[in-house]
Amino acid sequence: MTDEAVALLRALDARGWSIAAAESLTGGRVTATLVDVPGASAHVRGGIVAYATDLKASALGVEPDLLAARGAVDPTVAEQMAQGVRRVLRADVGLATTGVAGPDPQDGHAVGTVYVAVATPETAIVSALSLSGTRDEIRTRSVQGVLELALTVV
Amino acid sequence: MTDEAVALLRALDARGWSIAAAESLTGGRVTATLVDVPGASAHVRGGIVAYATDLKASALGVEPDLLAARGAVDPTVAEQMAQGVRRVLRADVGLATTGVAGPDPQDGHAVGTVYVAVATPETAIVSALSLSGTRDEIRTRSVQGVLELALTVV
Repeated sequence: MTDEAVALLRALDARGWSIAAAESLTGGRVTATLVDVPGASAHVRGGIVAYATDLKASALGVEPDLLAARGAVDPTVAEQMAQGVRRVLRADVGLATTGVAGPDPQDGHAVGTVYVAVATPETAIVSALSLSGTRDEIRTRSVQGVLELALTVV
Repeated sequence: MTDEAVALLRALDARGWSIAAAESLTGGRVTATLVDVPGASAHVRGGIVAYATDLKASALGVEPDLLAARGAVDPTVAEQMAQGVRRVLRADVGLATTGVAGPDPQDGHAVGTVYVAVATPETAIVSALSLSGTRDEIRTRSVQGVLELALTVV
């Protein structure tokens, strides 16, 4: 449980909104961080970890042509993941993470290149993060980054 | 990363099998634990966190009549979740967790009642766990339980 997760659940409660997460490099940590907050079941629907690139299309509805042209580490892919998980898991708010945790670069993107996205009934936003550290630190900071972004629009 | 996760990824490598997880009370931690192992992308497809009960039917294909009759904390629900995530995320092996992390009992089941299931191309097994501890400890032991069960059949 993190301070950001507690604050986000409180904000969702004020809005009467539910939430779900679409995750790539964070591998389930965003959803787990939300579920750790007592009372999470009132607002957290669930999550989809689309770690393999093809699942971003088949499980989340990201456009296959976009994935083929740009790869998985891309701001529009992040936004389509956030919109997709809202639709597939029937949630008001969708969060998404995609990026390179390392140790090797991916599709020409440096380790630490991460895109986080948030879609709500009112808006959709994407943020580019350039993170440093170990695989674990990059994942932890990506979780924090998407929760902080969500707090700006929920 | 845990010793069980490292051993399971090694066993999957020997089999040439991929893996995905369907999670309820563990909320994404099973998938996150697998993804933490270096080289996970060769075998880990992803995961579906069906925290809300209705998603166990709509996202994982658990029979709605079964959920209505027995609730989400049930061994057959666990097995259908493991089979469902294999199918939906196109993985050779499916893991599943469902149970009561607390603090309150659910559907008449005591806190710490947890079912974990594993489905492979060869077999499907379910194990009933009776765990004690905090919400966090029950979740951690549930993750360990499903990974240990998987190691008996992969």
